[in-house]
This record gives sequence, structure tokens and C-alpha cells, in this order.
Amino acid sequence: MGKNIFFECKGPFLLHELFSGLKLKIKISDIKNLKEASKNDLTFLDNSNYANFAKATKALYCITTEKLKMYLPNTCKPIIVKNVLFDLCVVIRKFYPNADIDTPDVSLRNANKKKYLKVKLGNNVLVGKNVKIGKSTVVGSNTVIEHDVSIGDNCIIGSQVVIRNTLVGKNVIIQDGCKIGLKGFGFIPIKEKNLRFPHIGKVIIKDDAEIGANCTIDRGSIDDTEIGKNTFLDNQVHMAHNVKIGSNCMIAGQVGFAGSSIIGDRVSIGGQAGISGHLKIGNDVKIAGGSGVVKNIKDGSIVMGYPAVPLKEFIRNSKK
Amino acid sequence: MGKNIFFECKGPFLLHELFSGLKLKIKISDIKNLKEASKNDLTFLDNSNYANFAKATKALYCITTEKLKMYLPNTCKPIIVKNVLFDLCVVIRKFYPNADIDTPDVSLRNANKKKYLKVKLGNNVLVGKNVKIGKSTVVGSNTVIEHDVSIGDNCIIGSQVVIRNTLVGKNVIIQDGCKIGLKGFGFIPIKEKNLRFPHIGKVIIKDDAEIGANCTIDRGSIDDTEIGKNTFLDNQVHMAHNVKIGSNCMIAGQVGFAGSSIIGDRVSIGGQAGISGHLKIGNDVKIAGGSGVVKNIKDGSIVMGYPAVPLKEFIRNSKK
Amino acid sequence: MGKNIFFECKGPFLLHELFSGLKLKIKISDIKNLKEASKNDLTFLDNSNYANFAKATKALYCITTEKLKMYLPNTCKPIIVKNVLFDLCVVIRKFYPNADIDTPDVSLRNANKKKYLKVKLGNNVLVGKNVKIGKSTVVGSNTVIEHDVSIGDNCIIGSQVVIRNTLVGKNVIIQDGCKIGLKGFGFIPIKEKNLRFPHIGKVIIKDDAEIGANCTIDRGSIDDTEIGKNTFLDNQVHMAHNVKIGSNCMIAGQVGFAGSSIIGDRVSIGGQAGISGHLKIGNDVKIAGGSGVVKNIKDGSIVMGYPAVPLKEFIRNSKK
Repeated sequence: MGKNIFFECKGPFLLHELFSGLKLKIKISDIKNLKEASKNDLTFLDNSNYANFAKATKALYCITTEKLKMYLPNTCKPIIVKNVLFDLCVVIRKFYPNADIDTPDVSLRNANKKKYLKVKLGNNVLVGKNVKIGKSTVVGSNTVIEHDVSIGDNCIIGSQVVIRNTLVGKNVIIQDGCKIGLKGFGFIPIKEKNLRFPHIGKVIIKDDAEIGANCTIDRGSIDDTEIGKNTFLDNQVHMAHNVKIGSNCMIAGQVGFAGSSIIGDRVSIGGQAGISGHLKIGNDVKIAGGSGVVKNIKDGSIVMGYPAVPLKEFIRNSKK
Repeated sequence: MGKNIFFECKGPFLLHELFSGLKLKIKISDIKNLKEASKNDLTFLDNSNYANFAKATKALYCITTEKLKMYLPNTCKPIIVKNVLFDLCVVIRKFYPNADIDTPDVSLRNANKKKYLKVKLGNNVLVGKNVKIGKSTVVGSNTVIEHDVSIGDNCIIGSQVVIRNTLVGKNVIIQDGCKIGLKGFGFIPIKEKNLRFPHIGKVIIKDDAEIGANCTIDRGSIDDTEIGKNTFLDNQVHMAHNVKIGSNCMIAGQVGFAGSSIIGDRVSIGGQAGISGHLKIGNDVKIAGGSGVVKNIKDGSIVMGYPAVPLKEFIRNSKK
Repeated sequence: MGKNIFFECKGPFLLHELFSGLKLKIKISDIKNLKEASKNDLTFLDNSNYANFAKATKALYCITTEKLKMYLPNTCKPIIVKNVLFDLCVVIRKFYPNADIDTPDVSLRNANKKKYLKVKLGNNVLVGKNVKIGKSTVVGSNTVIEHDVSIGDNCIIGSQVVIRNTLVGKNVIIQDGCKIGLKGFGFIPIKEKNLRFPHIGKVIIKDDAEIGANCTIDRGSIDDTEIGKNTFLDNQVHMAHNVKIGSNCMIAGQVGFAGSSIIGDRVSIGGQAGISGHLKIGNDVKIAGGSGVVKNIKDGSIVMGYPAVPLKEFIRNSKK
């Protein structure tokens, strides 16, 4: 992910500042996932699904468990904890103390028509610092675009939209009332005072995508949330943190995606379907409206039901 | 539908300008459905369900297929294509080049309290050209009402609402955050660059209707989207393009309607139910919350389940 | 509930002004539920579930039916009607003529930075009369806070939020686009002109709660709607009138609650689940995503399905 555009990293920290038990004066620049981490970064491994990434990580230190440490290469020393997500949460909060809640950008100003010469602006368009808006883009009234957001050429952003922590490609349409780039629903449940997981990722919306009215697209926690090229979302869709949707997909109204699921290309999903978290949906998959998907789905499958099963099986069961 | 209030028609075109294969210098004024078309308009037939309308159409030319042309009267010449919707889309885009995307109305101005003398206006109410608002109507703050929208007497329009391409009757309540009259989710999927279907219809909301907070009501593509007299919608309901709901209906929260379904009078639908596209739901139907309706439903039926079946059958199946 | 902060009570009325059949010159101050009513108030009993409250009521007069009057103590005289809710509705409308519809507060003003010295305010923050906002609270741009709302210290209120008739504790987060404190979906269906039930309750959001983007939380009709301490709601959740959620709960995206259900503490509900009205969900309950709950659920249960059943039963049924 390179340097974080949206959140200031307070690193480097010395390793013993992060884990008081470790008496190591090693300098740690940042915290990144297994794939993105360089040798100056700390990484983490909480699931054997990521064994392949673990094997290839360049990080020298990794938060993990006694059970999972076997997946790490010799070059990477495990920092053994009981609950990877909890310790990860605490560490990220040190590096990024302002990413766990979304304080509204109160430095917003009315978009200056001189600065945005080739942009058509509605009334009361509010933009933060360093916002870039491409030429021929139109922004509707009362829309809020927070600091450092970048929007490509020839986009249409509706009225009463909020966009933060997001990179928008060109020819993208975002309809009225969308809320994009907010922190996700991630926290460690603790009685009387949940510990919020920082969300240092962003939202990436690729060229030619379209997002219907009143959708909510949360940004990633450590990873990014992504919408692929020429993928269209209907109204009132909810995408949780880290969800990635491929290109040329069609997502109908009121569909919901729980966190971290990966959707292939040319996938079509009917209205009100729900996709559980941490799933992999293949390419060319069709999911019927109202379905509840709780398992990975292979390329080219057609599924329906709650829980969703192959269409033939659904029809057979309905006839019993 | 008469003259289109919201979208400028670029017609007339000569028939051979629309279909280069046809060497006919016939003047075509507009494109309309079978029922509304006059002898100067072009029409289309893509489904044998509409055979009755086809028989009675006044149009002299109709886009259709080899298979469907038999339903047309002798007075109406078929223009044979492979994919009616694709050719229809291309032709409508010529007549109405600005109806496929919703460019925000950047000519909005703060509602002039002198012009709207008998209307109570919140702060920062933005209205477009030719907007009509009836007496004793109240409009909440930050609400956007785009050009040519008409709102009757004694209505309440909440805050942070967007209304475009819509005719609102009298005594109507539209609660905060609704987005009404946007283009629907209609397009021809094409790799890397979907072709958006123009939406030249409007939304019609009849007297005494009520729409809850954060609902999204899309306008019609060729037809209109309608909400009947004294019909109430709860919060977060989604109505896709061309859906028509009769009078005295009760639609609970988070219900979703896919495109072009027709709902009768006195229908009640429980929360989170979904109604598939192109269905006909009779009068006095009751649909239980959470149901997924995928077939037409007869007058007076009570249905439940996914897919929805008569209540007795649902209970019997549950006991197996 | 003590004195109503948000709605002016037009009482007292004489009993025969409320029920023309009763020739009693008794002064009635207000209308309250069985538990809250004092001897100067009128109360109502429409369901034997409330027999215990009936037994202990201090009210001297109670709207009820021939069948239910047996639950009232000798100190409380029944006023017998056919349809308690209808008569209740008519009577409340006399006491509170302005609580059945949400006329936007057109007395809103731009929040005065001098008045709200220790609050960080975005652009175009609009507040009504007597609004209280605690220190270190941040309010995002274009947000509307109507008269008499109170918000505690150290809260974060997003952009494009509407809050009315609500008391917010401290350390509460309300994300962008939420609409809180609106009237619920309650009315007596009457042909051509439904009779709206007044909503004289409020919303209470306790300390450390969090509400995701574009949620809708309706206020109570006679009772209040409540969100408990440290309870988190994800995006696009809908809470109907009178719903009470306990503390330390986790409610995922797009969940919907129908009216008057009571949810215990430490309950977790997966995405898109629906909870029917008037249910009691115990403590420590887990409800799987997409479930439809139509019955009370005991403490500690795990349920799934539509209708939701204990998890083991759901799995057994799926294998049939």
C-alpha cells in the first residue's frame, strides 16, 4: 500500500515499546499485512489460510500464535500472543491513533470555483484539504468530500454524498446519499467499552463503476475495499470493510456484503442477497435475489437459497 | 404520457436515421410504449405478455423480433431486430441523450421565500427551475428539489431529501433522507463499458401517501413509477424503476421491489420482504415479513417464505 | 416519563371532553402507560400480557375492552371500547396534536460557535431551540439537530445526520446520514385516509453506543426507543418505534427491528436479520445473519433460519 495517504503513521516505534515483554531495540516503521510488509515493518498471521503469504513475507517480525508460527519462514521471528486480533488492534492503535473513529473533517470549505475550474459544482459543496477532482466531473449540492480524496475525470457525484479516504477513478457515477470510506464495523467486544479496530485502509473505486443511491461502502481495516472496473451497484447496497468486488459485476438493490469477502469478475447478485464474511466468490457466478451465501462459490456457479446452494439442488429441495 | 416534462426530446428523426438499414424517409416524433404511441411514434414489443396492447397500438412502426411480429396489427410494420432491448436502448438514447445518467442540477438556487410565499422553508432549501410547491407545504433543511418537480398543497418534505423527475400530490409526507426520481438500475451489460438504458419516465406520488426515511424510489425507464393514494411506506424501502403500487397499501421497513412489478390496492407487505421484477401482485394480498416473492399472486392471498407460498403451505412445510 | 420535553401536552381535559358518552367532570392531565400513569392520568390496557402492570397501576381510568377489564384493580375504572388502539389514538391526538407527523423544525439556525464554545462544528450545522451539545463533541457538516435534543460530552455526530426528539449520552458515535427520532410507522388503516398514531416518545441512546451510517431509528409512540450502553449498530440498520436494545450488543448491517421488541444484553445479530414486532429476545442470544425471528428467544440461545430456530435444529433440517 506504500505510504498511507489518509492516516498519519506515528512510527517508527522500537519493538519493546510495542510489546513490553520484548527487550529488543529494533526499529519498526509500520504495520502491514504479510504481503505488503517490508523488512522494517511488523506483520501478523492469524489464519492458516494465509500460509502462502506467510512463507513469502519480507517482514522480520510477525504477531501470531504458538499454533501458527510454523508457517513463518526462518527469516521472520514470531511474536507469540493468545489473540492475534487483540494485540494487532493495540499495536495499530499506536501507529495510527486516529483511524479507529471517523471524526468529521471540520476543516472543510466551500469548494472554490477558481480552484476547481473545470468541475461543475452544485451549491454548498464542501471539500477538505488536498482534494483532487478531475475535469468535466460534476458534484451535486451539499456533498462533502473530505481531505485527500481523489476523484477522476468525467465523474458524476450526486447530492448529499459523503466521501472520505477514497480514490475514485474516471467515468464513475456515485448517486445521491452515498456514504463512502467510513470506518467498518470492527472492534474487540469488551464489556462496557469495546475496543475499536483502526481502519487504516481506503476505498478504491475503479473506472466506469456506478454506485446507486444511499449505499454505504466502508473502507478497509488494514487492507483496502475495492469496486472493480465497470461494476454497477444498485441502491442501498452495503459493503463492509475489505470487501473486493471484481470488474463487470452487477449488484442489485439492498445487497449486503460482510467483511473481507472477495468477489470475482462478471458476478451478478440479485436484490437483498447477503454474502457472509471472509468468503471467496468465483468469476461468472450468479447469486439469486434474497439468497444468503455462507460458503465459497466456484467459478460459473448459479446459487440460490438460505443458505445458498446450487440452483438445481434448491429446486429439488423445494419440490420435496 | 404526453409531452415529457423532465427530458427534452430531440425528435423528430427520420426512420433511416434510427435504423440505417431502413431506407425510409418517415418522420418519427418520439418513442413510446404500445399503448401510449400515436401514429407518429415508434413503439416496441419484446414480450408476448403485451400481445393485447400490440393488437391495439396506433404506432405505424414497432421494434420487435421475428417471433413476436405476429402480434402486431397490419397497420403496424415490424422492424425486426435480434435484441429488442438493445436496439430500443440505442434509439431512446438518440431521442433522449440526457436521460441515462443523473447529472445533478447545478442550476439550483436557494428557494426564494418571496416566490414560495405560502410555503414554509427550512435552511438551505435548494430548488431548480420551474419547481412548483403548493400552499401550506413545509420543506426541511438541506433538501434539494430539482427542475420541473411539482409538489402539491399541504405536503411535508423532510430534511436532506432529493427529489427529481417527480410529481407529488397533496397531503403527501416524504421523510428525511429520501432519494426520489433517480434513474433505475437498467443497462445492457457490455464488457468494460455497460450501455445505460435511458430513464425518461417519472415518479408519481398520489395524494395522502407517506414515504419513510432514507427510502429510494427510482423513476421509470419508459413507463412511470407510481405510489397510490393513501399508501404508506416505512423507512429504507427501495422501489426500482416502473414499479406501481396501488392505493391504501402498507409497506413495512426495508422492503425491496425489483423493476416493473405491479402491486394492487390494500396490499400489506412485512418488513424486509422482496418482490422480484415483472410480477403482478393482486388486491388485498398480505405478504409476510422476510418473504421472497418470485411469482404472481392472486387477489386476497396470504403468502410467506422464500420463495413465498400460501401461508397454509408454508406452515405445513415447516412442520415436516 | 415525567413531563414531555419534545411535545407540548394540551391537557388537562375533562373526561367527558375525551369520551362524549361519559358525563364525568373529572380532570385528566395526560395519557400514559399503566406503569407511568399517576392518578391524574388516563391509561390503557389492550393486551393481557400487561396484566401485572394493570394490577399495579395508579391511574383512576383506563381505556380497555370488556374482556380485559378484569385485570384492572378496583381503584381503576374501565372505559370500555371496541378497539383500544383506535380510541387511544383519538385521545392522544387531543393531548398531543402535533406528534403524529414530523413537521421539520423551520426555526433551525446555523449553530452559533459562541454558544457552542467547546464543540467542534462542521459547516452548515443547523440547530433548533434549546439544543444542548456537550464539550469535546464534534458535529459534521450539514447535520440537523432539532429543538430540545440533548447530546452528551465527547460524542461524534457525522455529516448529513438528522436528530430529533432524542437524548444522546456521552462518548456516542453516530455516523453520516443517520435519521434518528422520527415518528414510527404506526397508524390505523382507514380507506382513503389513514389515521396516524401520535408518537410522543423519544429515542434514548446511552453512553458509548455507536450507530453506523444511514441507519434509521424511530422514536417511541407512547414508550421510548432505546439503545443500551456500549451497544454498536452497523450501517443501514432500521429500528422501529419502541424497540429497546440492551447493553453490549452487536447489531450487524441492514438488520431490521419491527416495533416494540425488547432485546437483552450482549446479544449479537448477524447482517440482514429481521426481528418481528412485540418480541422478547433474552440476554446473550446469538442470531445468525439473514434469520427471520418470529418468536421470543430465551437467554443464551443461538438461532438461525426463517423462521429462526435453534442452530442444531436448523442444521438437522438442512440435512434432510
